[in-house]
Amino acid sequence: MSEVRNKGIEAKNASVRLASLSSAVKDSALEAMAQALENSMDRIMAENQKDVNAAIDAGRSRALVDRLVLNEKRIRDMAEGLRQIKALPDPIGETVSGWTRPNGLQLAQRRVPMGVIGIIYESRPNVTADAIGLCIKTSNAVVLRGGSEAIHSNQAIARAMAEAAYESGIPKGAVQLICDTDRSSVIELMQLCGIIDVLIPRGGAGLIKTVVENSKVPVIETGVGNCHVYVDGECDPEMAVKIVVNAKTNRPGVCNAAETLLIDKKVAPELLPVITAQLQERGVELRGCPEAVELINGLIPATEEDWCTEYLDMVMAVRVVDGVEEAISHISKYGTRHSEAIVTNNYFNGQRFIQEVDAAAVYVNASTRFTDGFEFGFGAEIGISTQKLHARGPMGLKELTTIKYVVLGDGQIR
Amino acid sequence: MSEVRNKGIEAKNASVRLASLSSAVKDSALEAMAQALENSMDRIMAENQKDVNAAIDAGRSRALVDRLVLNEKRIRDMAEGLRQIKALPDPIGETVSGWTRPNGLQLAQRRVPMGVIGIIYESRPNVTADAIGLCIKTSNAVVLRGGSEAIHSNQAIARAMAEAAYESGIPKGAVQLICDTDRSSVIELMQLCGIIDVLIPRGGAGLIKTVVENSKVPVIETGVGNCHVYVDGECDPEMAVKIVVNAKTNRPGVCNAAETLLIDKKVAPELLPVITAQLQERGVELRGCPEAVELINGLIPATEEDWCTEYLDMVMAVRVVDGVEEAISHISKYGTRHSEAIVTNNYFNGQRFIQEVDAAAVYVNASTRFTDGFEFGFGAEIGISTQKLHARGPMGLKELTTIKYVVLGDGQIR
Repeated sequence: MSEVRNKGIEAKNASVRLASLSSAVKDSALEAMAQALENSMDRIMAENQKDVNAAIDAGRSRALVDRLVLNEKRIRDMAEGLRQIKALPDPIGETVSGWTRPNGLQLAQRRVPMGVIGIIYESRPNVTADAIGLCIKTSNAVVLRGGSEAIHSNQAIARAMAEAAYESGIPKGAVQLICDTDRSSVIELMQLCGIIDVLIPRGGAGLIKTVVENSKVPVIETGVGNCHVYVDGECDPEMAVKIVVNAKTNRPGVCNAAETLLIDKKVAPELLPVITAQLQERGVELRGCPEAVELINGLIPATEEDWCTEYLDMVMAVRVVDGVEEAISHISKYGTRHSEAIVTNNYFNGQRFIQEVDAAAVYVNASTRFTDGFEFGFGAEIGISTQKLHARGPMGLKELTTIKYVVLGDGQIR
Repeated sequence: MSEVRNKGIEAKNASVRLASLSSAVKDSALEAMAQALENSMDRIMAENQKDVNAAIDAGRSRALVDRLVLNEKRIRDMAEGLRQIKALPDPIGETVSGWTRPNGLQLAQRRVPMGVIGIIYESRPNVTADAIGLCIKTSNAVVLRGGSEAIHSNQAIARAMAEAAYESGIPKGAVQLICDTDRSSVIELMQLCGIIDVLIPRGGAGLIKTVVENSKVPVIETGVGNCHVYVDGECDPEMAVKIVVNAKTNRPGVCNAAETLLIDKKVAPELLPVITAQLQERGVELRGCPEAVELINGLIPATEEDWCTEYLDMVMAVRVVDGVEEAISHISKYGTRHSEAIVTNNYFNGQRFIQEVDAAAVYVNASTRFTDGFEFGFGAEIGISTQKLHARGPMGLKELTTIKYVVLGDGQIR
């Protein structure tokens, strides 16, 4: 049997007993896993060095090497992350709702684990620790398939954590890491219907598209964010500047960063120069529609492609629009349904934007950068769903669960 | 442009305005659609006659022809169904939960429509009316792809309803029926990413498997039910007989009917003859494990295939097991995670069954036949989900919606 199928089945078998574990056992396992990371620091860093050397030898970008590196601080942060997950309330076993039918049947919707969660991800080895922690907390078995560039680091982390988990009473096989980093192992994971309950791809747009389009196992689509900030004709100019600058420059490489600025033509002549000056001062390259190019010196003319692009970089497209209606139709045409913001003082424009913009998160007078499990107060995050089924927006512990109906009777028949 | 793509895009365009419609407009449209069915009765029956004649000419089974036939009563029932949907509370716009973050951001999870729902179904033309009603109530546009055997009936129903909806203020294009009944139109529907938000297949196991495995659009899997009733060693014998007989014979052709009887060896010698006599009296053919065959005269020996089969017929497999543990592992191996029941007087066996059986609905001392949107009290049903993502068990109005996060600030940045 192949490695992928074999590990999938081991995880599936473990998932049955995992479903019945008490919160106390799971929390002590999370603490043990955190300690195991701290105690295995030297071994993890030694293994990580192999990955880092390989990446440098292969001439990979500095950004990639940076994401790959594990030092003492980063390992302590991973352990700290596990302790934070431990401190969260256990969602499993919650009665979501319950009622009694006229025939006396007592129904309850009870929160239960998914079963086996598959996670396909790239480069950052801290995802390994995070994903294991979130899955164990929610009584799910986990099958991890990380990228080849981090395979030694991922193996060291997963081994240390799986051993600690097992010693704390987590069933053997609950934590699985696929060692085969060939593309074929991803393809095989996507076929494991009946073994893997849900696949979550985390990484670049290419990986996500491949998984979404080819998986036979149900998928939660995460990530691509072509986000907009619309500065309305009636707004607080200072707030507009602050929000646009934050949404673009606070961390341009993440999915909730803004990529396009839309601005009402009523305020563009006065306000656009102020905003663009602030952006340019921070090194943002701007690409504008004809009206914006006319207003601002040195703007590169934007092409159709610019409106569609998630730059993930210090680049921003700028378009002057005729009010909230045109802003909404631009977002409807080019947005990826992730996070969209309006800056406005006008009640009705705010209401209209909230109502008509179709996205996981719609903001009035705040930065798109808040679309995040921690910022939303979930205490953890497995990714940001951009699909509409099951989960939308930041996914915390609850999104790794499903429900079952428990129906208690005293002999009811139809 | 192909019919499928064209109608998909028309539905998508309609979905934007649909999302903002008031409950009053939607409810008056539901009433108008019910009246339209009643007023178009002659035309619908004339069109239906074409389908019925074609089915008879093609030598289709009597059961299929029966499912196809529309008479005055069935059309009135469809209209009544729409009025029942009208009477239900509108789930759209509900604030599912809301909270304020320490930085003052006000978050709300608001219930919103999916957008465009695609439904692929077979034979029964009443699904057309049902699906349109449920989608309009939830502010979703709908693209219907029914079977070729009911195409004239479906067109007549959809046309009457779409016209009435439009005249009541539902945006043009919200109700679409694909006229091309070639297999290629199903394949094309499964590719419409970004246009169709979710596909729901309703029909036989073959159709469902094809859609689940091949669709690029997210799918909600419905239906296959290889359901079990386990009669525990400690139970009320009369209740056991009543529940097994009901679960098997009340309506054997539906997914929540029981297919296998499991019985504890402690009570099998005494109780199994009583149960099987009752079943046989009602014309149920029984296939047993060796122990059952030994206990009961005239039982056909069951093969491995019997444990896996959803008969949807007056046939039942019977297995004698060694207590609740073996019953659970049989269900875990052969069940389809639909509906599973235990008949027991023992508290711990009941608790264990609830905890360890992985299924959409788990019953203690009641018939599996209750897994149904109406019986659960949802007032409507679009199908029964056997997957774990998004919806599990009977799906009512709420399962045709998603959420968006509405975030109100006063200038917050990160």
